[in-house]
Amino acid sequence: MAKKIGNSSYVLKNPPSFLSTAAIVGEVESEGPLGQYFDLSVDEYWDEDSWEKAETKMFEMSIRKALEKIKLQPQDMDVMLGGDLLNQIISASFAARQLEIPYLGLYGACSTMTESLIIGSSLIDGEFIDRAACVTGSHFSTAERQYRTPNELGNQTPPTSQRTVTGAGASIIGSGGTGPFITSFTIGKVVDYGIKDAANMGAAMAPSAVDTIEIHLNDTGRVPSYYDMIITGDLGKLGSEILVEKLKEKDIDISHNHNDCGLMVFDIENQKVDCGGSGCGCAAVTLNAFLIRKMLEGKINRILLVATGALLSTTSSLQGESIPGVAHAVCIERSLSV
Amino acid sequence: MAKKIGNSSYVLKNPPSFLSTAAIVGEVESEGPLGQYFDLSVDEYWDEDSWEKAETKMFEMSIRKALEKIKLQPQDMDVMLGGDLLNQIISASFAARQLEIPYLGLYGACSTMTESLIIGSSLIDGEFIDRAACVTGSHFSTAERQYRTPNELGNQTPPTSQRTVTGAGASIIGSGGTGPFITSFTIGKVVDYGIKDAANMGAAMAPSAVDTIEIHLNDTGRVPSYYDMIITGDLGKLGSEILVEKLKEKDIDISHNHNDCGLMVFDIENQKVDCGGSGCGCAAVTLNAFLIRKMLEGKINRILLVATGALLSTTSSLQGESIPGVAHAVCIERSLSV
Repeated sequence: MAKKIGNSSYVLKNPPSFLSTAAIVGEVESEGPLGQYFDLSVDEYWDEDSWEKAETKMFEMSIRKALEKIKLQPQDMDVMLGGDLLNQIISASFAARQLEIPYLGLYGACSTMTESLIIGSSLIDGEFIDRAACVTGSHFSTAERQYRTPNELGNQTPPTSQRTVTGAGASIIGSGGTGPFITSFTIGKVVDYGIKDAANMGAAMAPSAVDTIEIHLNDTGRVPSYYDMIITGDLGKLGSEILVEKLKEKDIDISHNHNDCGLMVFDIENQKVDCGGSGCGCAAVTLNAFLIRKMLEGKINRILLVATGALLSTTSSLQGESIPGVAHAVCIERSLSV
Repeated sequence: MAKKIGNSSYVLKNPPSFLSTAAIVGEVESEGPLGQYFDLSVDEYWDEDSWEKAETKMFEMSIRKALEKIKLQPQDMDVMLGGDLLNQIISASFAARQLEIPYLGLYGACSTMTESLIIGSSLIDGEFIDRAACVTGSHFSTAERQYRTPNELGNQTPPTSQRTVTGAGASIIGSGGTGPFITSFTIGKVVDYGIKDAANMGAAMAPSAVDTIEIHLNDTGRVPSYYDMIITGDLGKLGSEILVEKLKEKDIDISHNHNDCGLMVFDIENQKVDCGGSGCGCAAVTLNAFLIRKMLEGKINRILLVATGALLSTTSSLQGESIPGVAHAVCIERSLSV
């Protein structure tokens, strides 16, 4: 039986395995450092007549692609767990309509990938279900026009900005696989340090990552070096610096093994992405294309994935609210230690 | 251990109990048939400077009120599970910021109340957690201006419209209580019959309720009369008629024991609410103020609550999409039968 330890961490008794993963990305992502690992790259419309429809298609097709690899059908899934950044998470819901899988919609902004893995692995460990499709995605152009300004304005971005990843990533997790396994997780609280600059998400989300990583290590009695990598979702360059520094003040040193999906998915020196990648798709494509593959190849044995979400809306910002963040951590291990 | 039965239904081994509930509503709701059952009624601003902030406050205070009744604090909760209708579910997220409870944000539109009970009861049954705060809410004025037209326009509503309930309802569920208990549930699929009229949500959502109720009864081998009441979330008058008729075509007769929260919360003959109530808050306040109380009083023994969500956004409608629906069913029983 699963066991709660400490404040808000949980150790799984029957750790679910990643049975298959897939990631579909846009053109800029395919030109980045992880380009070779993605299953497919498409242009921003992907033969649809709107960016939102292209985003929905990527969402749906990432699941279909992951299922194809293990010769399963959508109807072999017990539940689909996912969400995205669009108002009313329409990418997830319209993809669920096409797939006809029982569906629980989630919203944790860019933390949704780990949120879906937490709920999915709980349902599997609790023996409710055998298999879940956990999926998130985002799209640069739909996020820009929904959260910021009409894309046609061609606004310059401030240097603290991050580029929303165009892409969707799906994890098919289930009982009875051969790994990598989800062995523990920590559910985060909403943390707000009062940042109001919607062009500086890294700084807004870093405090929640600090909080969740500290709680995770305290709850589990682990030290940072327990992990080959501690990987945040999309703090980008500035947010990552804040995270490492703030944890150092708490005598937690992750400077040697921290990385951030937003810094892995783009080459921030040579691609015009300011502080790096962001969006639900950022952690989703990095996990499902790159990290799981490297674990399967034996290059990485144990990671803590800490996807981070900024819980703002245009309305909350217009009404003067600051930007709270949330981060959920999932421990993924290549094999089950005794 | 929990058990999956049939297509997408689950029977709980250790059914969690409702430990406490609370509901806070607006003025129109307090003048409706359930007025006497609500914990508190407030005006649409509740001393805040925007409707959205009032909605967030109702969300937060409904949890605090439910906790107060059983002398618990927010920190006694293992997790908060909730969502709302606002873009990026800011009511839920900003309430979670105030409460500092580990938080998993959900989005199932008006099906969110049963979605939160499903995830919460799974986490309890799986022995991950002891207690969860499951909560949803909505606000007439924030929904109108976000989904429809500026409220100041004073647009007339077509007769198929429903009035978004201003209110929030919270269920504190946990192990070791004395009931009512969550004993089984069915996770719904997204169903779309092609309705495009955003002023006719009842018709858009009815097919998903048909689907989920049929699957629930098939999966469990139950007949409609197994339940004292089968209660949909917010189909309203027209949607309820469609539901009963469509199920009749499948030889499932729920005409004697069906009711709808949207028809219970308002007096549709004498209040200006067209086809009845809607919104996440509709099922939330009806369940947490009225239904659970009637079960505790022994007036009702067994219900199937089927909250229904319309998964549209203004963007999806503007892009010509139809309105898919989803419905999740939760079986609540006053006591545990042998």
